[in-house]
Amino acid sequence: MAESWSFLDTFEPNFRPLVVIELAKGTKEETIEWFTKRIVDKKANGGAQLLIKPLVTENGDENIYLVGASHLRLLLGAETVGLVKECNDNSMRTFTYSSRKTFKDFADDNHDFLTMAECQYIIKHELENLRAKDEKMIPGYPQAKLYPGKSIVRRLLTSGILVQIFPLHDREELKKLRHSWYGRVKVGYQPLDEIRCYFGETIALYFGFLEYFTFALIPMAVIGIPYYVFAWEDYDKYVMFATFNLLWSTVILEVWKRICAIMTYRWGTLLMKRQFEEPRPGFHGVLGINPITGREEPVYSSIKRQIRIYLVSLPFVCLCLYFSLYVMMIYFDLEQWALDYHEENESNFSSLMLFVPSIIYAVVIEIMNRIYRYAAEFLTSWENHRLESSYQNHLILKVLVFNFLNCFASLFYIAFVLFDMKLLRQSLATLLITSQILNQFAESLLPYWLQKRHKKRMKKRMCSLKADTDLSLVEQVNLEKEMGTYFGTFDDYLELFLQFGYVSLFSCVYPLAAVFAVLNNITEIYSDALKMCRVYKRPFAEPTANIGVWQLAFETMSVISVVTNCILIGMSPQVNALFAESKTDLILTVALVEHLLLAIKFIMAFVIPDKPRDIQIKLAKLEFESLEALKQQVRATDMYNSEK
Amino acid sequence: MAESWSFLDTFEPNFRPLVVIELAKGTKEETIEWFTKRIVDKKANGGAQLLIKPLVTENGDENIYLVGASHLRLLLGAETVGLVKECNDNSMRTFTYSSRKTFKDFADDNHDFLTMAECQYIIKHELENLRAKDEKMIPGYPQAKLYPGKSIVRRLLTSGILVQIFPLHDREELKKLRHSWYGRVKVGYQPLDEIRCYFGETIALYFGFLEYFTFALIPMAVIGIPYYVFAWEDYDKYVMFATFNLLWSTVILEVWKRICAIMTYRWGTLLMKRQFEEPRPGFHGVLGINPITGREEPVYSSIKRQIRIYLVSLPFVCLCLYFSLYVMMIYFDLEQWALDYHEENESNFSSLMLFVPSIIYAVVIEIMNRIYRYAAEFLTSWENHRLESSYQNHLILKVLVFNFLNCFASLFYIAFVLFDMKLLRQSLATLLITSQILNQFAESLLPYWLQKRHKKRMKKRMCSLKADTDLSLVEQVNLEKEMGTYFGTFDDYLELFLQFGYVSLFSCVYPLAAVFAVLNNITEIYSDALKMCRVYKRPFAEPTANIGVWQLAFETMSVISVVTNCILIGMSPQVNALFAESKTDLILTVALVEHLLLAIKFIMAFVIPDKPRDIQIKLAKLEFESLEALKQQVRATDMYNSEK
Repeated sequence: MAESWSFLDTFEPNFRPLVVIELAKGTKEETIEWFTKRIVDKKANGGAQLLIKPLVTENGDENIYLVGASHLRLLLGAETVGLVKECNDNSMRTFTYSSRKTFKDFADDNHDFLTMAECQYIIKHELENLRAKDEKMIPGYPQAKLYPGKSIVRRLLTSGILVQIFPLHDREELKKLRHSWYGRVKVGYQPLDEIRCYFGETIALYFGFLEYFTFALIPMAVIGIPYYVFAWEDYDKYVMFATFNLLWSTVILEVWKRICAIMTYRWGTLLMKRQFEEPRPGFHGVLGINPITGREEPVYSSIKRQIRIYLVSLPFVCLCLYFSLYVMMIYFDLEQWALDYHEENESNFSSLMLFVPSIIYAVVIEIMNRIYRYAAEFLTSWENHRLESSYQNHLILKVLVFNFLNCFASLFYIAFVLFDMKLLRQSLATLLITSQILNQFAESLLPYWLQKRHKKRMKKRMCSLKADTDLSLVEQVNLEKEMGTYFGTFDDYLELFLQFGYVSLFSCVYPLAAVFAVLNNITEIYSDALKMCRVYKRPFAEPTANIGVWQLAFETMSVISVVTNCILIGMSPQVNALFAESKTDLILTVALVEHLLLAIKFIMAFVIPDKPRDIQIKLAKLEFESLEALKQQVRATDMYNSEK
Repeated sequence: MAESWSFLDTFEPNFRPLVVIELAKGTKEETIEWFTKRIVDKKANGGAQLLIKPLVTENGDENIYLVGASHLRLLLGAETVGLVKECNDNSMRTFTYSSRKTFKDFADDNHDFLTMAECQYIIKHELENLRAKDEKMIPGYPQAKLYPGKSIVRRLLTSGILVQIFPLHDREELKKLRHSWYGRVKVGYQPLDEIRCYFGETIALYFGFLEYFTFALIPMAVIGIPYYVFAWEDYDKYVMFATFNLLWSTVILEVWKRICAIMTYRWGTLLMKRQFEEPRPGFHGVLGINPITGREEPVYSSIKRQIRIYLVSLPFVCLCLYFSLYVMMIYFDLEQWALDYHEENESNFSSLMLFVPSIIYAVVIEIMNRIYRYAAEFLTSWENHRLESSYQNHLILKVLVFNFLNCFASLFYIAFVLFDMKLLRQSLATLLITSQILNQFAESLLPYWLQKRHKKRMKKRMCSLKADTDLSLVEQVNLEKEMGTYFGTFDDYLELFLQFGYVSLFSCVYPLAAVFAVLNNITEIYSDALKMCRVYKRPFAEPTANIGVWQLAFETMSVISVVTNCILIGMSPQVNALFAESKTDLILTVALVEHLLLAIKFIMAFVIPDKPRDIQIKLAKLEFESLEALKQQVRATDMYNSEK
């Protein structure tokens, strides 16, 4: 079986370590033997046909394994997962082993045809699709039940035998990427294609969206600055700014779809066929027959899930929303108290005190958001969704609703109940800036600092044990396995979503919000890049063709912002002065304008095509070719039959 | 070549006439020879491999041909067009000749496996896909240019050599269908599956929608009757009725999608793959290379088309809209004049005169709609769209906007400018009822009467020529070729769309509208059925999976009706009395309720799944199977490669 892998034969020619498997310490010998045998076994015998070697650490533990694969195996795997690559004629096609010669840069000895991220994705896919045959349980662990077709890796993970699987960093590549990404001071685009090669499409698309969104905010910011500098308060200028904002936000969201299509076409994910979704790891139920696959697997009644959603989760979310509103009322009491204090003893200190309630509230909001996040994850996991996508959608919905109310309720209250535009502006500024500072700190700087400290400690310990400089691989694995895990782009998108809310919902009251958003996003790009490269374990690449449900979330926000901005403008004293004789006329006008703007938004979204013309033509061409191929096949049958 | 087909050998065993081709009188012999040769030629030689026989009429003209096909040919054609049929295990699958034994009711001698409509659709598809090879022109007609890949039939049609192609009726089947459809007086559903077998999916889906829509209107009608009977004028009752209407219309449109999915799954069209769209017959341009197919075909610059659309069509439509508004103003002058006349000399005659302007206006609206329809068709055709679908979308958009304004502008004017609820009710009733009567008359009764007269004349002439009773086939062809052509479901859907507007836009003012709509639709079902069976040529079956752009049109109407109903309720004196002290509060409340209703609508549309669960599972099962099949293929390659 697999030979031992010591820190001396790092450069064995046929084995390039790609993925690390960490088993629990003290895992039974028979389990390890069975698991590694299944991994190296031939596909024909139901194995994954990969290469695996134990990593011997300084204390002799054999609980870490390195997984790799032969070049041929990876190419066949690329066909299995349906990778799309560029052909010699510059068109994008699904890779098949038999047509490999037609692909650009393909050569039998070119091991860079597949990027390392793609290789790691293929290995992850193969490992996850390693399925139980006739085993009733994991050897050595009778309580870890198996049934035919159950993913072995997922059962090992849920029963705690497998601690983690993660892809290794490529230190050379990472160094290069770091340099071109944030290493030098420069004005320009991010190296999105390189990011995609290293981290995969989901993460590259997030950075692409972040960059696009920042650029898209610049016009708003530029137009917003004179409002602050010259303290413009004219009615017509505000209306112009708000109208521009509303139409602009529709345009940027529509244009993003087009840019996204261009990028994902180039990356091949736009053409990738959706794979059949297996149940998510945490899904449990009694064994039954899946009506779709006809296979035996856990089945959980949809009615039970509906009951959990509507009778437990929904009331809980409502309770949380109520609690959030309650906290908001406390904030207003504090605010009032600070105002009273300021009026009683007017001093520099007391005027500074005016900002304290807002800052405290912003901190409390952040804390509540984070606590609620855990509760939402727990609840959604307890709802026992069969598919990861369904789990994600329910989680996102729960988190979005709460975060929206939590962040914006106080602003709505100030705007539409207290009618205090000055306070609104002040609250908005405090909330926006505080949350940005907190986020930057909690997201990257804190983990980075912890990571730095940990690394130093590790290095010291390592060095004290052996005075060897050739430790790199063992050291690298040991370092990386202790790094935090990146849980996906959810939090990053959520932050952008809330920022979009701050910028667009009340844009006509505080035009400077866009300026802060732009400034924040520029540093965000760098701190997120730092986070990806330095703080977290390398995540597995995840092919994706768009930003999914976030597109819908941003579009909904832009619809809501039409309503809020129209009301705000209608409430402004300048507009009220204009309609001095009749308040009814004012409201009717505002309502009319609002409906017109909404109608224009929908028409614009309808008229702007989601994909640029050349991408449309390329897609149509591929579709046409596959239809033609099918016809040729039919025609061949026709001829055969007619000649009989 | 094809033998002559006289009126004696009607029952030749291997030839069942399915489709009639009528050439222009005096078509050159060489053209006919070339065309028929191409039709009977083997697929391998680029022919259609169909059977064709001339029909000798009493005056010896050989300009009508009957087309049929062998049973095997039709089965192979079914595979080419991608028909989906039911398997022995009750699942729906794409038919392939090699797997023919697994399909329900398949037997080599069962010639009813494909319905006659399917056979005719296959023949139409094969004829339209008969493409020029190296011919530069149609033999005998040097001005009718051809280029490789150009559809011969389309060129023959556009150059006038081919007068028409139409499928033959099956008199036995038609008789049965007529009987079960409208032959006996009964309460119950239409035989949609039989209609689909005879006329194809598009027409069956229209009748399905018509029936569904009628049933869906019944609750509205039932609730509306007491408002009329008891002359209820209470505020809360009207609000209840309007709210019910608005939510109900959302529900019925969502539920229709589900019902439509169930029907089209059963008919196989839900699973049918979209075929590659060829240019529409009327499309012209200079020869160039199509970027998608790489084939030589006419190319027309998209910019030129955009210029035509935005600089000619759009201004023309706007002009028509302006004209329509102008006519509306004349109507109001007439209305005023009638009112003055009534006041001056009050009599029975003068009170009847009050209705005259409305009736005249309704007639004028109908006439304008019909004239505009021709203009819109001419313009859209002149815009030179490459695809039939694009042509249809532009035509539908043009016609919808004009019809909407033409029909509803006066009502909007009365409601929101004149604030005259009594006049609104009266106008609504007159417009609705007059347009219904006109439609029924112009659509079916008039053509039916003309058809009857024509048939009698034909019969008389035939009988006078020969005292033979065995004329049936020749007579049938001669009769059917003179019948009108059914131009698709456009007008029928448009009528329903406008009716939906009358019912929903002002439902809270005139609850009785739903009652008239139901009554009209019941007779509409019968008159449309009569029209399909008796008046028009049999149309070619057209597979479709949904009602397409009409779903969107109906949904847009239901959104607009939320706005109109909220305003109408806000304007009612009862509601005004409720908010006597503050008109501002009233408007704000109305705006709030409107936004809430719109939000509920969107959430409902989002929450109700478009396909029922069992259809979703069946579709997922099919997708899973095809993915598995692909995997098996890959696995086989894997094994092959790993064993090498």
